[in-house]
Amino acid sequence: MGSYIPPLRDMQFVMHELLNVEAELQAMPAHAEIDADTINAVIEEAGKFASEVIFPLNQSGDQEGCHWNDTVVTTPKGYKEAYQQYVEAGWPSLSCDPAYGGQGLPISLNNALYEMLNSANIAWTMYPGLSHGAYEALHAHGTDELKNTYLAKLASGEWTGTMCLTEPHCGTDLGILRTKADPQDDGSYKITGTKIFISSGEHDMAENIIHLVLARLPGAPTGTKGISLFVVPKFLPNADGSVGARNPVSCGSIEHKMGIHSNSTCVINLDGALGWMVGEPNKGLQAMFVMMNAARLGVGMQGLGLTEISYQNARNYAKERIQMRALSGAKHPEKEADPILVHPDVRRMLLTQRAYAEGARAFTYWIALQIDRELSHPDESVRKEAADLVALLTPIVKAFITDNAFECTNHGVQVYGGHGFIAEWGMEQYVRDARITQIYEGTNGVQALDLLGRKILSDMGAKMKKFGEQVRSFVEEHGVDAKMQEFINPLGDIAVKVEKLTMEIGMKAMTNQDEVGAASVPYQRVVGHMVFAYFWARMAKVALEKESTDDFYKAKLATARFYFAKLLPETAGYIRQARAGNATLADMKDEWF
Amino acid sequence: MGSYIPPLRDMQFVMHELLNVEAELQAMPAHAEIDADTINAVIEEAGKFASEVIFPLNQSGDQEGCHWNDTVVTTPKGYKEAYQQYVEAGWPSLSCDPAYGGQGLPISLNNALYEMLNSANIAWTMYPGLSHGAYEALHAHGTDELKNTYLAKLASGEWTGTMCLTEPHCGTDLGILRTKADPQDDGSYKITGTKIFISSGEHDMAENIIHLVLARLPGAPTGTKGISLFVVPKFLPNADGSVGARNPVSCGSIEHKMGIHSNSTCVINLDGALGWMVGEPNKGLQAMFVMMNAARLGVGMQGLGLTEISYQNARNYAKERIQMRALSGAKHPEKEADPILVHPDVRRMLLTQRAYAEGARAFTYWIALQIDRELSHPDESVRKEAADLVALLTPIVKAFITDNAFECTNHGVQVYGGHGFIAEWGMEQYVRDARITQIYEGTNGVQALDLLGRKILSDMGAKMKKFGEQVRSFVEEHGVDAKMQEFINPLGDIAVKVEKLTMEIGMKAMTNQDEVGAASVPYQRVVGHMVFAYFWARMAKVALEKESTDDFYKAKLATARFYFAKLLPETAGYIRQARAGNATLADMKDEWF
Repeated sequence: MGSYIPPLRDMQFVMHELLNVEAELQAMPAHAEIDADTINAVIEEAGKFASEVIFPLNQSGDQEGCHWNDTVVTTPKGYKEAYQQYVEAGWPSLSCDPAYGGQGLPISLNNALYEMLNSANIAWTMYPGLSHGAYEALHAHGTDELKNTYLAKLASGEWTGTMCLTEPHCGTDLGILRTKADPQDDGSYKITGTKIFISSGEHDMAENIIHLVLARLPGAPTGTKGISLFVVPKFLPNADGSVGARNPVSCGSIEHKMGIHSNSTCVINLDGALGWMVGEPNKGLQAMFVMMNAARLGVGMQGLGLTEISYQNARNYAKERIQMRALSGAKHPEKEADPILVHPDVRRMLLTQRAYAEGARAFTYWIALQIDRELSHPDESVRKEAADLVALLTPIVKAFITDNAFECTNHGVQVYGGHGFIAEWGMEQYVRDARITQIYEGTNGVQALDLLGRKILSDMGAKMKKFGEQVRSFVEEHGVDAKMQEFINPLGDIAVKVEKLTMEIGMKAMTNQDEVGAASVPYQRVVGHMVFAYFWARMAKVALEKESTDDFYKAKLATARFYFAKLLPETAGYIRQARAGNATLADMKDEWF
Repeated sequence: MGSYIPPLRDMQFVMHELLNVEAELQAMPAHAEIDADTINAVIEEAGKFASEVIFPLNQSGDQEGCHWNDTVVTTPKGYKEAYQQYVEAGWPSLSCDPAYGGQGLPISLNNALYEMLNSANIAWTMYPGLSHGAYEALHAHGTDELKNTYLAKLASGEWTGTMCLTEPHCGTDLGILRTKADPQDDGSYKITGTKIFISSGEHDMAENIIHLVLARLPGAPTGTKGISLFVVPKFLPNADGSVGARNPVSCGSIEHKMGIHSNSTCVINLDGALGWMVGEPNKGLQAMFVMMNAARLGVGMQGLGLTEISYQNARNYAKERIQMRALSGAKHPEKEADPILVHPDVRRMLLTQRAYAEGARAFTYWIALQIDRELSHPDESVRKEAADLVALLTPIVKAFITDNAFECTNHGVQVYGGHGFIAEWGMEQYVRDARITQIYEGTNGVQALDLLGRKILSDMGAKMKKFGEQVRSFVEEHGVDAKMQEFINPLGDIAVKVEKLTMEIGMKAMTNQDEVGAASVPYQRVVGHMVFAYFWARMAKVALEKESTDDFYKAKLATARFYFAKLLPETAGYIRQARAGNATLADMKDEWF
């Protein structure tokens, strides 16, 4: 079933040597006390929990799956106990507000925790993971009463949370949802409807489950402007914080899925369940977007976690498994055959996994730091700039990293050959688990549209320009350094190409909006590569300075060179596909399909 | 669970309008009597069997899987009865030799049968599918006695066959296999060893199973030149054709796999099992290659079958499921939302599936016709040329089509969104089933090496030149036709690029053979596209001539234009990746991984 070793050295490289997070965080009053030792101690401890407690449950949880029996869901053997340990160690409250019992540590730390939890067991991690989104939505939009009732319980992990958006007839198109909320005299609502695909919607791990539910008020406008958000607890909380009466919100069944077997994906029936409004009437979608954006970044972290674990195991296998000789002559003549690591195509697959994992780590840890700036920086203009960068790049975190994760977990299977297809080895589970990350919280096609249509074209590229300025200033600063040219030249090149491609599509979209949808997916790949090229160039800069001190930096440089030689060039194809536009998609009449 | 409608019109288009198979086959004495009506009647009947008998078992078979109990394997409910019907209808013997009870029909027809069986249920189809390979190896290399004992039983389907190559420590590297064959006084051998990953290795569908086993004679040379091939029946045949004593060859366990759950993947233990040699001592690998090449083409057909079924269901869903409005304005204002078919990216995914399915059909049916020419054409030079083309392009059939199938079955899931991930809808099974096609019968990485190293560089491009001449003559003939230029120009362009890229890699390989392994996988994608561009240009030619008569041809042209605009351009990225060579793969030292 393989192994998992938390990549602490790589995480520390990104946090301390690349991003200098201590200094960045210390500039924020809320985090003035943070230091590198604290950061390292926390991630080391988190790594132990991930690798020792939940990683050993990953394969058995997949094989056993969840059990449903008349509204009751039982999680696989060991899940409940592991969650208990997680709660007792205080992990749920790591970056929660001290006003509600949280530890007040930066998002940057919570993010590092989640990388490791996701490598170890993404299906288990979704139980606490979704709570965090519910916590954030209530924290941002709840009344004081709601906050006082729920936040401390969610922060401690005693209770968990869900997001209830999807209905049988609508997923992407929330504007047509039908669940109803009838106002009661006491200010509460009775919620009636059916929600599907509710991750962690019912389970036996915590004493209460807090659902955040989208529904319509009587007479609400049609479409997305008539949706409100409600908090609907499984058990109604008593004034003393204990759980009271059962609310009629129950699990009608659980889905049988391709992957994430040990996370319960529930049909949730609301039969006049009591709920309380979060935020303004008919503005539920905005409130829910707090949660959705957090969830999208979380899905990107699932992609990173799965890429890393698949790499580690494929790498170990490639060193042990002997098969054939190197084409250029035996490398280990004393053995019956050479380890498959000698074969260039095996190295290509492993380096692809590695370059995408390390690129994603640099990028997502930087994003986490931007969120810390957005939440905690004293300077409003810094907060605003950080928020814009996070908004712009959220679809890249979600779509680019998860598409890469699916490719990479498949490389992991391919390195194992036939054994990769066999459940026992554990590699095919990573593929099945990764597949959902391209779908949920907005399919990657929807992410690509969000990037190009909403984040870039709608403000005439203003947010994109801010990120572009960072890239340009890095290019200008280091373009004169002869050693950096192998990285700076292709980075500058792709940045210019993105600018040109964006303008071209923008022009075409003025006459036909379908041009946006026709170009968006390949466009997203190209922008994703520009982002990764930027972070790989920055990592190369750090590594060049320290190259002589440690092989760690030599490996980092070798991986950077591989990225620029072998992965970035796929943009040549994507640019052409984006440029080919809508014509051949539209010319095929509907009835010809 | 979806539906399957045999694509008879498309199959007939390829056979009758594109390839003119009747006239081609009638030039062969063995098939002088064939006509279009016979072909159409056979494929129509085969389509009924596939869609009505085995398609309904596909999902239930996946869910139930095979059962193992103390060497006995039981296939899922309905599998045995379906196989009985298959045998009774005479399908196994379709293209077998009349000297052994076969119907003597062309491979072209058998190939069309297999496209449909694979769309309907690839795991079921592997039971008869592997028999055919065993039949061919015995037919080509067996003694008359062996042929008389086994061929009629395999042709009728009363007995099934397997290929036993892989062992726990060797898959790709058969040179290190350890199974032993001890000669007995009566000319037989006692075979001892353990084989793994034996598809259809044990089951309850036929009264006997005929294993073709690779093993070593005492004192045989090490490596691939010391391997011999043996036929090892589960039950020793009596002189009257009935089954006699149980041979000690048994199933030790079956694997739990990512997909093809209903095909038994067996550990086969040979405990001094009686076997008889097929072909010459120490030349077993050549004999086995007859079977292996047939199997590789068969895997390509699995890729086509899965692409087609995933397309059909995704297309149906995209027409029914309503969600959001078209970006360019509502297309069905009378409905609550537009069908998702209006979204350009959904069309992109569907057209990708369609273009790869139809391209693969044209290509593989042409390959099947080349095999008929190789086997049955009266002119030796024609037979030789056909054999060379089949040898050259077998890795493209196997790797290019199955890589596309994995991409396309994933598009099928993505079109369904969250529902695609749920087992009930059936779309995720196609992904899990498709994944093995990239691995077995030689991984796609091995296919790419076979193409570039063995098929192209080793004869200095002689075989490649033959295919290139067909492309060139098509380009020259139709380059003057103004209407064909949109297809001819990119086809001519990619052919020139392949020639140049091949020369470049050949030059680099002279100093370092690892350059072949470093370029082979992206190179394979580029050559695959050249082949598909050729067949799409040929299909466009036919469609242009008949465009005004039927929307079928307009749809064909629209799909051709999509292929050239949106899929062929991915070669721009692959060419750069191939050209980037081995440097960045080699610079990463083994210990840095």
